Parts: sequence; C-alpha cells; structure tokens
Amino acid sequence: MLESDKQILRINMRDLSVKWEKTPEKWSKLGGRGLTSTIVFEEVPPLAEPLGRHNKLIVAPGIVTGSNAPTSGRLSVGAKSPLTGGIKEANAGGRTPHKLARAGVKALIIEDKPSDNDAWYNIVIRKNDAEIVQANEYHLMGAYKLTKLLWEKYPNKPGIIGSGIAGQLLLKGAGVFGNNIENSDPGRYAGRGGLGAVLGSKKVIAIITDDKEGEVVKAVDEDKFKSASKALREALQGHPVTGKDGGLQNYGTNILMNIINEAGALPTRNWSSGYFEGASKISGEAVHELVDKVKEKFGDEAEGAYAHPCHPGCVIQCSNVVPYEDNGKLHVAPLEYESAWALGANLGIDNLQQVAELNRLCNDLGLDTIETGNALGVAMDAGIIPFGDGEAAIKLLKEVGEGTPLGRIIGSGAVTVGKVYGVTRVAAVKGQSMPAYDPRAIKGIGVTYATGPQGADHTQGYTIAAEILGVKGQVTNPRDINKADLSRAFQETTAFIDSSGYCLFIAFAILDVDEGFKGMVDTVAAMLGENYGVDDVTKLGRNVLNTELEFNRRAGFTKEHDRLPEFMKEEPIAPHNVVWDVPDEELDKVHGGR
Amino acid sequence: MLESDKQILRINMRDLSVKWEKTPEKWSKLGGRGLTSTIVFEEVPPLAEPLGRHNKLIVAPGIVTGSNAPTSGRLSVGAKSPLTGGIKEANAGGRTPHKLARAGVKALIIEDKPSDNDAWYNIVIRKNDAEIVQANEYHLMGAYKLTKLLWEKYPNKPGIIGSGIAGQLLLKGAGVFGNNIENSDPGRYAGRGGLGAVLGSKKVIAIITDDKEGEVVKAVDEDKFKSASKALREALQGHPVTGKDGGLQNYGTNILMNIINEAGALPTRNWSSGYFEGASKISGEAVHELVDKVKEKFGDEAEGAYAHPCHPGCVIQCSNVVPYEDNGKLHVAPLEYESAWALGANLGIDNLQQVAELNRLCNDLGLDTIETGNALGVAMDAGIIPFGDGEAAIKLLKEVGEGTPLGRIIGSGAVTVGKVYGVTRVAAVKGQSMPAYDPRAIKGIGVTYATGPQGADHTQGYTIAAEILGVKGQVTNPRDINKADLSRAFQETTAFIDSSGYCLFIAFAILDVDEGFKGMVDTVAAMLGENYGVDDVTKLGRNVLNTELEFNRRAGFTKEHDRLPEFMKEEPIAPHNVVWDVPDEELDKVHGGR
Repeated sequence: MLESDKQILRINMRDLSVKWEKTPEKWSKLGGRGLTSTIVFEEVPPLAEPLGRHNKLIVAPGIVTGSNAPTSGRLSVGAKSPLTGGIKEANAGGRTPHKLARAGVKALIIEDKPSDNDAWYNIVIRKNDAEIVQANEYHLMGAYKLTKLLWEKYPNKPGIIGSGIAGQLLLKGAGVFGNNIENSDPGRYAGRGGLGAVLGSKKVIAIITDDKEGEVVKAVDEDKFKSASKALREALQGHPVTGKDGGLQNYGTNILMNIINEAGALPTRNWSSGYFEGASKISGEAVHELVDKVKEKFGDEAEGAYAHPCHPGCVIQCSNVVPYEDNGKLHVAPLEYESAWALGANLGIDNLQQVAELNRLCNDLGLDTIETGNALGVAMDAGIIPFGDGEAAIKLLKEVGEGTPLGRIIGSGAVTVGKVYGVTRVAAVKGQSMPAYDPRAIKGIGVTYATGPQGADHTQGYTIAAEILGVKGQVTNPRDINKADLSRAFQETTAFIDSSGYCLFIAFAILDVDEGFKGMVDTVAAMLGENYGVDDVTKLGRNVLNTELEFNRRAGFTKEHDRLPEFMKEEPIAPHNVVWDVPDEELDKVHGGR
Repeated sequence: MLESDKQILRINMRDLSVKWEKTPEKWSKLGGRGLTSTIVFEEVPPLAEPLGRHNKLIVAPGIVTGSNAPTSGRLSVGAKSPLTGGIKEANAGGRTPHKLARAGVKALIIEDKPSDNDAWYNIVIRKNDAEIVQANEYHLMGAYKLTKLLWEKYPNKPGIIGSGIAGQLLLKGAGVFGNNIENSDPGRYAGRGGLGAVLGSKKVIAIITDDKEGEVVKAVDEDKFKSASKALREALQGHPVTGKDGGLQNYGTNILMNIINEAGALPTRNWSSGYFEGASKISGEAVHELVDKVKEKFGDEAEGAYAHPCHPGCVIQCSNVVPYEDNGKLHVAPLEYESAWALGANLGIDNLQQVAELNRLCNDLGLDTIETGNALGVAMDAGIIPFGDGEAAIKLLKEVGEGTPLGRIIGSGAVTVGKVYGVTRVAAVKGQSMPAYDPRAIKGIGVTYATGPQGADHTQGYTIAAEILGVKGQVTNPRDINKADLSRAFQETTAFIDSSGYCLFIAFAILDVDEGFKGMVDTVAAMLGENYGVDDVTKLGRNVLNTELEFNRRAGFTKEHDRLPEFMKEEPIAPHNVVWDVPDEELDKVHGGR
C-alpha cells in the first residue's frame, strides 16, 4: 500500500457513524504531529471546551510509520489540551503505530461525544474497516486487565490504545496508553497534556487495531527510500549513543539519571534541589544491574531486560523491562528516565522497586508519569505525605483509581494540587508540569519549556542533546543564557521529526552524522514523492510550529504565558546555587513577532 | 481632618515594618477602587504569583468615606486575584470603612509575606498609629468566635476585617470579611476574587481599626459638600427603590429573588434552568414575613430585622437580620439576594433556614457566598450530593473548615470543582463564578460578565438596573443583544462610584433623579477641591477601567478571555428557551481597541 492511499477515518461518537474519507490534498503531505496539529487547527474551535463536544481527538501515524524504515514506529495523538488549554500533540511507540498505518489509516478523527453519559465504547479498526462496539463492561477497569482481555479477545495480537481509568474519570493528568510490542501491557504512553481525558470525554475506552490484512506502507520512490533508509540505519547503528551496545541499549533513557544529577539539574523533592543523593539507586545503571542479577539468579525464568525495542523495527532499542527483585518476573516495562525521575528523585524516593511500582500504577490507572510525579511532589510539599515515603506515595496514588477527592486532585496534575493546597512551588508552564531537567541549571531546556506551544515539555525542543550530551563533539554551556536560537532550532527540527514518524532519539545520531540526517530527510521525501533538501526540515517544522502557535494565539495565549514560574527566579537550586535568569526578551526571540 | 491629610499606611509583613507615608500627588485625587487598582497596577508585577511575595493587598476607603455624606461607607480591597489571575477590587460596608478613613488612612498597603510559615499576625490601627501583633492563637478560628474575642479585647467597638479560615488555608473562594456595624459578626464581605487568600498568604488574620480618636473626614469645600450631600440624600430618600419604606428597606436586595425568577433568569440547580419553583420561599418577602412572625411571637426578644443599615449613615438600609424561626434569635445578618440565590435556588434548596445556615457557615469560614454556592452547585452536578439536599450541603460545606480534600476543592471555587470532577457546566468567566442573573435571559449582564476586568461580577456594570428595573421609567429589553454601549456606560459609572466610597445602590436613585446624580458628583469634587461636572463621571471611571484592563493585558489577558462558557451557547434555559447569542464582535466593542 502506498502512503498516499491511506485514508482519513472519521468517527462521530454522537451518531456513532464511521466514515472513511479520501485524504484531502491539503493534508496529503502531512503525517504525525504535522497532521494532528493541522486537523486540530482546522476543525477544533480554539475556545472549545476541551472536554466538550467540539474538541476532537486525532490519532495519526507518522509519514514513514508502517514502512520498513528503522525506528519509525511513532504515533501522534492530538487535541486541544484540557491541561494547557492550548494545542497538544503527544506521541508514543508501541504496537499500534505500525498497525494503524498498515490498516490504511492516515489519521483517525474522533469527534463529538455521546448524548448518553453512561454509554461506553471501543473502536475496532481493521484493514479499511472500522466499527464502534459497546464496551460498558470495561468501564473503569485497570489498564493491565483491560488490555489483557482485549488481547485475548482479538485474534491478531492487536495494537491497543485507550483512555484508562484516569481518562474515564476526566482527570487532566490522564495520558493515552498503548500496549507494548510483545504483549498487552500498557507501557507506551502518549502521556502529556491530559489527552486521555479527551478520549474519555468521547466515551471511548479503547481503540483496537487488529490488522491481520495490513500491508507495509510503500514509498512513491521505493529505490530512493531504501537507500536513504540504509544510510539512516547505518548512522544509528554506528553512533555511540544509539548504536549496538551503546549507552541507550545498555541503560535506556535512564542513563540520564546520573548524568543530569552530576550536572546539578536533577529536580529533587519537588524542585527544591538539583541534586539527589539517591540518584544512582534508581538510575539506568541500577536497572541494568538488577536485570543482570535476576538473570543470574532465575535464569530463563527471569523477565528483566534492557536493549529492548518499543516498536517493531527499532534499532536503538532503548527500552527496558524492570523485574521484581525477589522473583525476576516482569514488574514494569519500560521504566523511562522521566518516569524514574518523576516518581523517584522528585519525591525523594530512592527505592527502585517502589519507583517501578509507582510507574506500574500510573500505567494501570492511565496517568502520565511526569504530571503525576509532579502532582505527588507538590502534595508532599503541602505536607500530605512525607518526601521519601514510597509506601505512602503508592497508597496515595491508588486513591486516583478509587476516585476519592484526594485521588481526583492528584490525578488532575500538579497545578491543581498547588491551587487546592496553596502551594506556589509548582514547576509548570501553561498548566503542564515540567519534565526532569531543572531549567535553572540548564537554561536552553527552560527556553523550550517556556516558549514551546505544548506547555512545559522537553521533547518539543530537546536542547539537552547540545547542552549536556554535545553535538558533533561540542557541548554548549548549559548556563549560557542566550538560548533562543538553540531552542528554536531544536523546536523546528523536532516538529519535522515528530511528523515523520521517526522516534526523536534518532536526533542523537543524525545531528552528528550528516549522512544520517540526509537519509532521514530522503526517506520522508521519497515516501511522499517530494524533493526535500536538508534545509527543508526547519522550514517544514516551522510550518507545524506556526500552526500550533496560531491555534494557541486564538485560544488566548500571549507572550506572557511563555514564562517560567516565579519561584524559579527566586529560589536558587543546589548544588550550583543558580536561579532562572534568562531574560524575557530572550524568550520572546524564539518565535519572534507573535 | 481633611481628606487630603490622610496618609498611606504601608505594612511590610517580611520585616514587620510599619510606615506612614505622605500621599503622593499622583494618588491624591483617588480613593476606593480607583486607588486600589492604581496601586496594584503600579506596584504589583502583572505576572506575580498571586499568593507569593510580590502581590500586595490594598485596602482603601472611598473618597467621601468617613464624611457625613449619606450611604458613603464603602471600603475597597484590591490585589492581583488568585481566582482570576487578573486585577481585582471587591468592596463592602460594615464597621471598618468609616473608622479607617477617620483614623487617617488613605490606603493600607500590605506587602511581602513572613519568611516564617508558622507565624500569624493581626494589624491594629489607631489614629495615625499602627502595629503588627502576634496572633497565632487565632489561627484557623471561625470568624464569629474570632471577631467576638477581638471585639471584647479592643475597647472602642473596633472595625475588624480579616482573612478567615478559608483565607488562611489559601483557598481561592475566600473573601475578606468585615464585621457588621452593630456587633462583631462577620457579615460584610469584600467577597470576590479570592482576596481573603491573599490576606491569608500575608499571614494576616485580622485588621482591627480601633479609632477612638478618629475624626470625621472634611471636604476642601465644606459648603458645597454639605449642599451636595443634601441633594443626594433627598434623591435617595424620595426614590421608591431606595427611599423610606421602599422596596430595598422592606425586602432588601433579596426583593430580586421573585423578580429575577419571573424574568426567567434565576439560575437554578447549577444553571440548568432559569426558573426555581421554590423561589418565593427564600425571597426577600419570605424574610420580611419571617421577621414579622418572630417579632409577633417573641416580642422584644426577637432579633430579626429588615430596613437595617450596613454602614453608619446609610439611608437606604437594605440590609436585614434573619432570625431562627424557632427562637427569634439572630441567625445570620445579612442574607443578601446573591447569597440566597447562590446557596438556595442554585442548589435547588428552598428552605430559608437551611439557606441562612449555609450563609452563616460561609461567613464563619471566610468564604464568598457566590463562589461557594457555585462550587456546591457544580459538586451537585457532579453527583457528590443531590440537588435540593440542604442538610447534605451544610455537611459538605463544613468540610472546608475541616480542611479535608473535598473541603479544599469546594473552597477553591466552582472552576476547580469542575476541573477536578470533569464537569463542564461551570458558569464562570476568567476563573470567577457568575452571580445570580443568567445571561442567556438577560444579555446585558452577560456582556458585563464577559468584558469586565474583574471576571464574572455583576457589580462592575449592573445593567439589571436598566434591563429589569428600568431607568427613568424605561426598561431596556433584556433579550436585545446590542448591549455593548449599555454595559460600557454602567462599567464606567460604576468605576467612579466604587472609587467615591458610595454604595453602588445609590445608582437606582441617581440614574432617575438628575439632582441626585449632580449631588453625588459634587460631593466628590468638593471633597477633593476639584471642579468635576457630571460628564467627568464616565471619564474618570474610564481611567480606572483602563488601568485595570492594562494590568490584565500585561498579565496575559486577551479578548479571547472575554467570553462566556461554551455550555451557555448550547444549552437553552427554561422557561424562555434561550441561549447566549450575543456575538463576540458586540463584546469586543465594549472596551474597543484593546
């Protein structure tokens, strides 16, 4: 199947209609984030109530997703965010992305909501076929149990994404979960922005892609595509970060725990320090060690793993499976750096088993780990439970599933916890919590948090690559405050990559290896039958950003919303004793004359 | 003492310093709202965290407050609002306004906050003298008990305003309470915008004005002032609404309950209908009847009253004292229309004793009745307790004082309840709940809710006067959608009146009686030694509005925030089956080229 033969699957949850629409010309060259953001921009009124009838949830595989390009299995989910009030795209790997693309879906548009408040549905997608089925029996079921039942019910090892308990409770910390590639476990999250609540507001519990007849997505220019794919694959495989036995394979994203801690930028105990004395115990190295230990102890029975792919065809394989220490069985997969930080260092918890359990609970409840870790951190700051008390955190988190008032507060995210408890140390921009890099110590990422259209979100302009890890052997001083150009360049490139279907982590390699970068661009161009050059990346990425920024402007956002919270300007963070000191003018330079 | 001799009292809660500053020339012609908004604009960074160090709480008597002008005892409280994020002014009568003016205070500025989170203070003000005293023993004490203790402790029947339990808990539904003129009861509220939480964030429990030596405030031109006062007084006394034995004296503001219900604009059961079948049971007529009944039954023992003033020298006397039915003793004073609606019709409660009890609880806890009634209404819509269940509502409201998670949610206002429980039927603008007039049935007040700088607030442009009650015998059709000019005119005039120190209710008379209007303007001019004409009212009011709008603009507000919630455009309200249909363009005309 050619990419251009994919169609728009439009599902209306009020009249329960299912329509396959020929992809309109204007959308034909878009995919992933570029497509979800464009559809949100064109079809969702900017002042729509995010959980109301007029919001839409868009699901779109990237341009090369479903092909045989390496590390290309990402799926974008977009909507107006109930957390930020602005446009949102979150993406994830897992089982669904390739399957959805191969079932012929260019984008799934879920619109309106049932008039019956007590009716719940699943959506089942097969090759050129989709249906809405009644699903009340799955309402408020934990995601592990839910996905297991669906995995057993549908014959073709389906891709499953869904709203989770938190999303069905309409909580703004809810992500859209997706199952892992090897089983039904809900370990893949388009986590941010409360998109799970948007799906829940549509009364959709799960979207099941059961594509037995699916076909590999083919490029318009297959020869060019194949050689470009090869160049990209070689760049990835040859790079010390993304290659075989490289840092990511051995330690996963959580290789960052010790690195960021050493940089004095690991937010600790609700952003009150940049250094966590227990970081090494919850680091990627600790996971690696634990996996080796249970393998040694339990042999083939052990389920722990590193160097694990999150989607078919990934050569980076930065994912992992954290085992229970006492029996070697699967505890949670994956445990990413962001999650280990949010549920570990940020809560003062250095017990890896407790951190894994908190992550498993988030997965089961349908919660974004970053938002939830921040919410728990603010709750600890409010004195509800003590910092460092993992058992208390587990108990508190379980309240989300019980729907208690406190559980609902936690599930609503850090800003809400802060509002309800009068805590002003809340690390958020545009209502969304910050990820695992303190901008007081690493300025560029703060510029991204402040100015990105998605609210505080590292993936939309991951300057950490330049400021900590280095590009082409050069590290940009993290404390240099002139980061507008750096953040803009990352934001633009990222918007392109997020549209392509490639995982953002290819960036480590392609920023270093020019042939890899060109290979990446050429695969996208070949897929679409276009003639993009390397310079088109920022141009096309810019288009996506401009669309998103314009939506936000129409939703009432101004440059005054592109600011970090007051406490970061006033509370210096240990060990470097630094505050947020990037001038507003530098921030306003990022996107210029808005 | 001349008005011009009053000084600025600046209190810093970090270093606990008290300074009397000569009024700067630029503030010398300002008072009340004009002064609080100007000081907030000049001294509070627009992006300041509302509960942080950089917000300031400003308290300012009106220009003629403390004089012998009739109905002139209003006090403005201003700050950046934690509820709206914009500028806020709320005003009230009671015992403090005249006393504070007569103690020589032009404005009280409370800035910064203690570094010690566990220290609580009172501020005691006497004639040209003020001190900060430790007050930990009053922390989280109910306002009735607190004010009684302070009333006994300070010898001169002090004016007391304070933060209340809700404010000390930093809840955004907290108002600034003030005691009644005849006793210590906390019945007077600068209720809106969460200003009680700002005072609480400064660690101030109460501000006690114990002004034995206070002097009547004198005008620069006393002769003109006296004759103008007389003209105003005659207009008020001769008018059927504001005069002796008029509607307001007999039934108080709650005369509106039946009127607005008949207009089909009485928001009922969380804004799901415009007609409440039980309205008459909680109306001003019902209070009047109850008062007469307990007087007959208990004679001199009965404490119920109507035709009761809220501040010394008020000739309108629209306040009341609601007695317990079974013993005639004071239950709550006053029960205003807005409160009876918010805690009655909006909750489907038609039991006057329960409504009075809910109001007394709000007073005791330091909660704004409008915000809290809306919060309870949304909680009922979420199914937490049933509509109409007064005992359940009382129990739920008590949770605010207990500081339970659910209590904190309720105390945080309707928008927070809606967010945490996923309810989208939340009647609010800029984060603040709407008062007792459904804009679907009365369009002009909706234009005020949408476009006023204070968030949804009827008092900032009370078009009801024209749309329901009529001005000079003419009633403007409430369903006419061309209300930009009407709302603007009311907003401008109101900004002037709110600055003068006069109660807004003089408007009923002065809009009808030209001599009264001129008298009002002349008293203000004579007080300041200015030569204002009648036309200066809108000009000077406009200045205040422009200051407020510019603060909001710098805080990130745009015209996109001047909109009513989505559900009002889509859910028609009984009995007239109307939706909100004023075009955005009409709204944007109110304040023009912002």
